[in-house]
Amino acid sequence: MKALVYNGPGKKAVEDRPKPELQAAGDAIVKIVKTTICGTDLHILKGDVATCTPGRILGHEGAGVIESVGAGVTAFRPGDRVLISCISSCGKCEYCRRGMYSHCTTGGWILGNEIDGTQAEYVRIPHADTSLYLIPEGADEEALVMLSDILPTGFECGVLNGKVAPGSTVAIVGAGPVGLAVLLTAQFYSPAEIIMIDLDDNRLEAARRFGATRTINSGEGRAAETVKALTGGQGVDAAIEAVGLPATFQLCQDIVAPGGVIANVGVHGKPVSLHMETLWPANIAITTRLVDTVSTPMLLKTVQAKKIDPKLLITHRFRLDRILEAYETFGHAASTGALKMIIEA
Amino acid sequence: MKALVYNGPGKKAVEDRPKPELQAAGDAIVKIVKTTICGTDLHILKGDVATCTPGRILGHEGAGVIESVGAGVTAFRPGDRVLISCISSCGKCEYCRRGMYSHCTTGGWILGNEIDGTQAEYVRIPHADTSLYLIPEGADEEALVMLSDILPTGFECGVLNGKVAPGSTVAIVGAGPVGLAVLLTAQFYSPAEIIMIDLDDNRLEAARRFGATRTINSGEGRAAETVKALTGGQGVDAAIEAVGLPATFQLCQDIVAPGGVIANVGVHGKPVSLHMETLWPANIAITTRLVDTVSTPMLLKTVQAKKIDPKLLITHRFRLDRILEAYETFGHAASTGALKMIIEA
Amino acid sequence: MKALVYNGPGKKAVEDRPKPELQAAGDAIVKIVKTTICGTDLHILKGDVATCTPGRILGHEGAGVIESVGAGVTAFRPGDRVLISCISSCGKCEYCRRGMYSHCTTGGWILGNEIDGTQAEYVRIPHADTSLYLIPEGADEEALVMLSDILPTGFECGVLNGKVAPGSTVAIVGAGPVGLAVLLTAQFYSPAEIIMIDLDDNRLEAARRFGATRTINSGEGRAAETVKALTGGQGVDAAIEAVGLPATFQLCQDIVAPGGVIANVGVHGKPVSLHMETLWPANIAITTRLVDTVSTPMLLKTVQAKKIDPKLLITHRFRLDRILEAYETFGHAASTGALKMIIEA
Amino acid sequence: MKALVYNGPGKKAVEDRPKPELQAAGDAIVKIVKTTICGTDLHILKGDVATCTPGRILGHEGAGVIESVGAGVTAFRPGDRVLISCISSCGKCEYCRRGMYSHCTTGGWILGNEIDGTQAEYVRIPHADTSLYLIPEGADEEALVMLSDILPTGFECGVLNGKVAPGSTVAIVGAGPVGLAVLLTAQFYSPAEIIMIDLDDNRLEAARRFGATRTINSGEGRAAETVKALTGGQGVDAAIEAVGLPATFQLCQDIVAPGGVIANVGVHGKPVSLHMETLWPANIAITTRLVDTVSTPMLLKTVQAKKIDPKLLITHRFRLDRILEAYETFGHAASTGALKMIIEA
Repeated sequence: MKALVYNGPGKKAVEDRPKPELQAAGDAIVKIVKTTICGTDLHILKGDVATCTPGRILGHEGAGVIESVGAGVTAFRPGDRVLISCISSCGKCEYCRRGMYSHCTTGGWILGNEIDGTQAEYVRIPHADTSLYLIPEGADEEALVMLSDILPTGFECGVLNGKVAPGSTVAIVGAGPVGLAVLLTAQFYSPAEIIMIDLDDNRLEAARRFGATRTINSGEGRAAETVKALTGGQGVDAAIEAVGLPATFQLCQDIVAPGGVIANVGVHGKPVSLHMETLWPANIAITTRLVDTVSTPMLLKTVQAKKIDPKLLITHRFRLDRILEAYETFGHAASTGALKMIIEA
Repeated sequence: MKALVYNGPGKKAVEDRPKPELQAAGDAIVKIVKTTICGTDLHILKGDVATCTPGRILGHEGAGVIESVGAGVTAFRPGDRVLISCISSCGKCEYCRRGMYSHCTTGGWILGNEIDGTQAEYVRIPHADTSLYLIPEGADEEALVMLSDILPTGFECGVLNGKVAPGSTVAIVGAGPVGLAVLLTAQFYSPAEIIMIDLDDNRLEAARRFGATRTINSGEGRAAETVKALTGGQGVDAAIEAVGLPATFQLCQDIVAPGGVIANVGVHGKPVSLHMETLWPANIAITTRLVDTVSTPMLLKTVQAKKIDPKLLITHRFRLDRILEAYETFGHAASTGALKMIIEA
Repeated sequence: MKALVYNGPGKKAVEDRPKPELQAAGDAIVKIVKTTICGTDLHILKGDVATCTPGRILGHEGAGVIESVGAGVTAFRPGDRVLISCISSCGKCEYCRRGMYSHCTTGGWILGNEIDGTQAEYVRIPHADTSLYLIPEGADEEALVMLSDILPTGFECGVLNGKVAPGSTVAIVGAGPVGLAVLLTAQFYSPAEIIMIDLDDNRLEAARRFGATRTINSGEGRAAETVKALTGGQGVDAAIEAVGLPATFQLCQDIVAPGGVIANVGVHGKPVSLHMETLWPANIAITTRLVDTVSTPMLLKTVQAKKIDPKLLITHRFRLDRILEAYETFGHAASTGALKMIIEA
Repeated sequence: MKALVYNGPGKKAVEDRPKPELQAAGDAIVKIVKTTICGTDLHILKGDVATCTPGRILGHEGAGVIESVGAGVTAFRPGDRVLISCISSCGKCEYCRRGMYSHCTTGGWILGNEIDGTQAEYVRIPHADTSLYLIPEGADEEALVMLSDILPTGFECGVLNGKVAPGSTVAIVGAGPVGLAVLLTAQFYSPAEIIMIDLDDNRLEAARRFGATRTINSGEGRAAETVKALTGGQGVDAAIEAVGLPATFQLCQDIVAPGGVIANVGVHGKPVSLHMETLWPANIAITTRLVDTVSTPMLLKTVQAKKIDPKLLITHRFRLDRILEAYETFGHAASTGALKMIIEA
């Protein structure tokens, strides 16, 4: 089968690979119908993800059709259309019981990282019963591919952790795909203001279309002041970091109101300075989270009920044999305007 | 009347001052019966608290008797015995409505800071109805003085924010008075383990008497390893910082389990390094808080029901005219073994 | 001044009454600009509310202008435009501290019940600082009159107690004004389905305009079956009772899903049969509540942010001198289509 | 093997039965070491549990040793000592994902009810990975048998649903084994008062030994008055029903304070009258629940940490071949003083 393979920092190729086989009683083999590319895949390609070794098929998102299942699988049978979660969850360990699938002792984010992933014609999914979701009759598979990772990430790490609530004020720092996923799912809770902050005016324009009530280009260096002015000097109830840099994390510290939350969504590569000398009496919380995908069943319901339109995030479509081109487009988002790509297998 | 006055960095004196008078309809004048000294008073005396200017009477804790009340006071009348909260709360502003009395727009921590405090024969209490608590018949005033600040601080900033729960594992970094207050109130929730960490073996011995299940002297530089070993490599559910230094905050980062909380109680003077490069996917929360004293009514009930013995914290007693000696004793805790002092007015 | 006075069961009149005067330091006198009529006023007129004695000026909703304030009032001054809460709250008692203003030991629902109310040119408001809300510049007073009672009632008793959440299924039994207030405010949380149940097709048509995803006329006696069929046999996550009769409460028992909530909003006059023989293992909750109006500040923000349009509830407008006509119209809602009336003073 | 078999209303016998065999990939066969008898077994024997048909081996509690496991079982292997949960949970269905194992679509309470149970030498456990718990090295198996059902039932249905909290007041109606389990686990949260109410003075004496702060014999018909008097006229924050009769449920309605919870634990056979005419504005919640056993891992930790001593509940011990005698003793608790029996297989 064809697959996109990581061959060490800076190197990737479409290669022919043997079709995966069942290895454990809980496994399923899924024929991929649609997949996509994540910012994390670019991190891997830079060599930033030590757990992902050369030879690995990338990809942790997608929708497909069950090809075969192991003896222990009870929830699915061949022919079922399924959504693949980016997080593999055994459903049994102490972390899974607590809803922290991201820390599953035999799962977590392993797809396209520690085991072969979804940017291929077939993929082996461990813990299939608790890592796949049946696609409802008549659902739009492209929309659902956004539920593999980006929407639960935005929702769980940003919106739930940020305690977004009716009437609250929210700032989202970073209007890339994940920041926009925060923006889409924040609207479930009817906050009074959603202020979107980015350096790129095109992304800010997208943010306004997606429902931001205000946008601020932080390039002028006055984002914190502007947020304070918009919020009567208080700052925001939720400052959601969707970039992963010290400067954007600092901005969140500057704009969070007393009693508010800094909800981190971004992937960070280095320490940040936390201003405890001013924050210790501020009654704030700072939260971190790798998406657990516990909200996937709920997100499926909101998509089915048309409370959210995940397809707003899709800007480009490619066939699997042209996935290198898709990477090219995705990797140059500033010029291509790429948000999420659909790769058809 | 006699009062302990801050006269600029390093300078304090017992002075004669005019008895305070009612200034606003919500004020009460309270005759002090017992007060105490807080670590924060030492911070002020070092010149570290910019809001506290020379000439200020110190002290934000105590119990006393209502002497007179303004026209707007309905909850108290002269002769009532009252507990004084370290936090003045108007009960009306948006922050007070949310239970964030610490950020009351016309109150917060102002006693012995922005207005004259309790280390005196009399004190004026603004917003009396919502900043004083009636002392139940037969209650022990010395025990209740511990409810002005230290017990709600330990409980709200450490235990509630740390989400201490039955069966959970807790580490408290710092076995000074406030760390011990965390320890006492953590036991309300029956955690499985409370690990106390400090440099001072005497304080660790006190911690064992107060209910710590384990103690670690961090002077040997292996506290993090030891905690990891005691918790099967996981770390603790709640790492409670009760010191206020970068090194102790770092230790909390090293020992918090995935899904856990770093609950900050300590007063910090400088930024700390937050290791987002490892913590971003750890599903943790870091919380900060200036005590709100919203738990005071509940703490009163637990003291009355003998679920906690606040007097364990009291090591020394002085009369108000010897308060300088009390400061001396309190300021040399390592040699005197001082925790909390009772000053009788 | 003119006022609508309850003169015993079945008797009401517009009478001339002396203008109210300040009685306590916390009082304010408010000149009424707009008020409205509540279903509870009709209950009083039937003689069903024992606490309301003949001679009482009715009305517990409205917006107005501060005329004068007592010595203890700090949050308002003459000339301020204010929203009047139907619940008077001292802000000091144990219940108020817990956010249960409805059970304030010196307040609660007293306006137009135990003390004279708002269907008059002026009203005395006790505990003014914590029972009035400043109307933001430029806000629509008519919309805000809906925040005195009906919107917080629908929101707190129905939506918050019902734990309405993104993707959840909700049934609201009763499409009168308060049921429609539940419907409007439930949408803050993006439930997947809101099923509205009533006997009156006109009200069900209004419900569809207000955002119901399904409507069921329960007159055919098959409402429970229909709800079960719509929810895959499960029932609803939240069954919200907005009528106050045994039959409608029974319907809620029939349609609540395991793990769900029956949130009562209706005013009941007699006991209901609770089927514990089937419900004991159903993992449900049944909640009751007199509105606390703790959500008023939040609701104000959502109105200002145009997340909700309370004016949808207003069907008729009258001047105060024609308030008897307004009562006539409101009392015959089936034929007049009345929801909420605005009475201009 | 020997087993206690239900042979229709009023009939039970110790019979020889074939040893159970693995039927599904997720099954385990457990050799029983200790089991016990539950009040529910008596209900079955009266013919009150329609789902339990003649020929069924009874028992849903116990500890044992894994004999064999199906192909899909990954958490256990032969020889492991395990605690058996009374609730079988697939860990995969929507209810299990939400922590409502009691409503598992292919599990729930089936052991000793819809499938053969634990009062035998061997038992087949479906969904073994998520329905068994590894017994820690050195743990006391007799204590842990109390974790199969009675302690999680008391804790989840009574204490968690009742929101027992530090300083709160709790009344437990019914001092039988499950009421005493509520009493033991309520103390995890340091309530100020735990008032135990029963008709049997011996049980009330046991309650005082187990930690009740007050006991009331309700035989005199003045229990409600007495509770009101003890709580300053307010009533209790949590009224926990552990009997299952209309009269005891009525008592809970009479004593719950505004803002409180009636947490039902008892198994009811008929409807109760719910006084909505007085409760509608009382801001209370009534909760029902079949135990989910989600708290089992936490309870294990508290037993290991000696925060609770489940063996207090054990009054008698029998060998499996004398289980009829154990039933006799358990069925006449008033005269035998029986709480929980240990049956050794």
